[in-house]
Amino acid sequence: MEKILKAEIITIGDELLIGQVVDTNSAYIAKELNSIGIAVCRITSVPDVRQPILDALKDASQRAEAVLITGGLGPTKDDITKSALAEYAGDRLVMHEETLRHIEAMMAARHIAMNPLTRQQAETPEHAVVIPNRCGTAPGLWFEKDGVVHVSMPGVPFEMKAMMREEILPRLQPLSSGAIFHRTALVYGIAESALAMQIERWEAQLPSHIKLAYLPSSGMIRLRLSASGSNRDTLEKQVEKAIADLRPLLHHHLLTADAASPEELAGQLLTERKKTVATAESCTGGNIARLLTSIAGSSGYFKGAVVSYANSVKTQLLKVRPEDIARYGAVSREVAEQMARHVRMLMSTDYGIAVSGIAGPAGGTDEKPVGTVWIALADTSQVTARCYHFGNNRENNILRASNAALNMLIEELKKEKQE
Amino acid sequence: MEKILKAEIITIGDELLIGQVVDTNSAYIAKELNSIGIAVCRITSVPDVRQPILDALKDASQRAEAVLITGGLGPTKDDITKSALAEYAGDRLVMHEETLRHIEAMMAARHIAMNPLTRQQAETPEHAVVIPNRCGTAPGLWFEKDGVVHVSMPGVPFEMKAMMREEILPRLQPLSSGAIFHRTALVYGIAESALAMQIERWEAQLPSHIKLAYLPSSGMIRLRLSASGSNRDTLEKQVEKAIADLRPLLHHHLLTADAASPEELAGQLLTERKKTVATAESCTGGNIARLLTSIAGSSGYFKGAVVSYANSVKTQLLKVRPEDIARYGAVSREVAEQMARHVRMLMSTDYGIAVSGIAGPAGGTDEKPVGTVWIALADTSQVTARCYHFGNNRENNILRASNAALNMLIEELKKEKQE
Repeated sequence: MEKILKAEIITIGDELLIGQVVDTNSAYIAKELNSIGIAVCRITSVPDVRQPILDALKDASQRAEAVLITGGLGPTKDDITKSALAEYAGDRLVMHEETLRHIEAMMAARHIAMNPLTRQQAETPEHAVVIPNRCGTAPGLWFEKDGVVHVSMPGVPFEMKAMMREEILPRLQPLSSGAIFHRTALVYGIAESALAMQIERWEAQLPSHIKLAYLPSSGMIRLRLSASGSNRDTLEKQVEKAIADLRPLLHHHLLTADAASPEELAGQLLTERKKTVATAESCTGGNIARLLTSIAGSSGYFKGAVVSYANSVKTQLLKVRPEDIARYGAVSREVAEQMARHVRMLMSTDYGIAVSGIAGPAGGTDEKPVGTVWIALADTSQVTARCYHFGNNRENNILRASNAALNMLIEELKKEKQE
Repeated sequence: MEKILKAEIITIGDELLIGQVVDTNSAYIAKELNSIGIAVCRITSVPDVRQPILDALKDASQRAEAVLITGGLGPTKDDITKSALAEYAGDRLVMHEETLRHIEAMMAARHIAMNPLTRQQAETPEHAVVIPNRCGTAPGLWFEKDGVVHVSMPGVPFEMKAMMREEILPRLQPLSSGAIFHRTALVYGIAESALAMQIERWEAQLPSHIKLAYLPSSGMIRLRLSASGSNRDTLEKQVEKAIADLRPLLHHHLLTADAASPEELAGQLLTERKKTVATAESCTGGNIARLLTSIAGSSGYFKGAVVSYANSVKTQLLKVRPEDIARYGAVSREVAEQMARHVRMLMSTDYGIAVSGIAGPAGGTDEKPVGTVWIALADTSQVTARCYHFGNNRENNILRASNAALNMLIEELKKEKQE
């Protein structure tokens, strides 16, 4: 019988509770834990205050078998996680010589003098296992209390990530004998409730260890199958089978069953077809370029972008005819098409994507309200454009326009295959 | 005596616990609550499972006076927040006619047929106050249990934000008679522990209701003063006084005491000086453009960007001499300077910023290891460039390069003032 270890995450820092910083660490940790068959049952964020930290530790360890903690390990007075953990473990802080030497070497390399505060970073609870921090001065800590594993990591994301990958996951993996497997299908062009009705019977027939979730976002729906059991390969096969049964029910609405995002799918298709792309972006402000370049290996198919915020950039760099801007407006089929064509030529790519729209909150007119977006796609022989009407929300308009543009490219790349 | 209301946030959704989605809602809600004098004491994320939701509600309501909940309100089977809330409140779900009419109107406008699932969206707990959702089909809910206010909102960020601003904050504001005030100073070019030593005496003299926090991130330190009390204006004056005392201790390391981010400060200075800027980005992939355009009103000073991922884009569009790329490499003073000069001319701006570097993980050499970044700034008369050596982490290199580039621009804009 498999044993899926139950974990909780505690993130510590006033900045999280006042909304100055978004907690991105929890999602990273949860994803990594899932990949080695550990489930996360609760995430808790508490301020840099002793009692709430102690309460959160006590609560979590009554429910979970492993508690992963980040934050509050800095050298300054506001950071108290280490002393709270020592108190919680009934331990005392002592100088850890190996960590001290590591900190001294780091400081020397950066030409920064040691001081009492940096020295104090090397103190650790006497009975905890000290986890080296290759990227920073705050060491990680690992200790057990009442049979529950507690792991403390720094809150700086890249320090935490390196420690998680290199030190924590290899130590946690043997503790879980279960497996968790997720696959996300991207569905486009159908409302969530209509989708749910359409696949109702398929959903009812899913095995009980496979859970279905609907995640609507910016005009798309991510349909996720999550399976848990004893063997990852078996789970993967069962999920693949379910997806195969799903395909005929969704027709062209199913963009892909094998990519987490449209930018990932676009990247896969561009790589397979050996095609390149460039973007010309007005209202999306470079967001499509950012999405495309967020994928490792994107330099193989993404050549560059022109962000043309000002109309002068549209006319001078993207060779949009000024008379067309005057006649049709910057948000028009004519302008979007010229942007797409010219960015493709400028960057010598197979495809050029262009977006020109009114994201809001200002800039709307009766004829072209906020949310009006023209998206054009140029290839070597032609250019096509579509007009979208999204809504009133600036943030959502940028996201939806980016997804719609990537979807246009994906549709075109899929046609390419069939030819 | 002031009364700062204590709130907790509960975000519901399997996607948060498996790390598929980062919880950005909590930070937004926390910031908004702080602005009306409500403190957030804990944030909890739980999956779409009945018992954990009920447990989280019970736990939170024992500590807090208001509990704000998001997520799990969709029309599909995986979303169970509404029925869990009804169970928790000891209430039953009934059809809410006004909501039903709103949903019917929304569906008609989108040319989507009503179905039993969308209809079900209009059912609400009989005794809850129904909060209209202008942007979506899932209504908000407001009810009290044991003297604790419970507010349930949709998880889709732009729906939640509109509801929060228009409906929830006005209802919550009268419940808190206290005030919370934060101000963040940006400090550059000094280590966290050295900074702490340098301002130790100043820190010791802060009044007890003003709390100091150090937030190091990507080569900068955000130094935050958080004050709570009965009157916002008084708090603001006290914080201003503390900052005035801090200034002489930090000299040029204090970039600003009045902006949350370097992009905000750069935007303020560009606006004040009536200057414009364009960027040419290689390894930062458009991140500087994205940062600059994230500030409302950026179209007043940001004209555009060229993302030159491919060398051909550097030579053809940014007129970098191919022989210089061959001789010095794409990551070199010569190339960065030419990129900065030419993007400034291309976009007819006062300043051109260029970044060329090796973000990693691949691409490093013995001579130019991963983390080597050249940043150049061109103005109407000259171009200057600096070389940075950040580190091994791609994500951090992109962030640090972006901050360093914005900092170069800020320094230049500050000089401008003195002249």
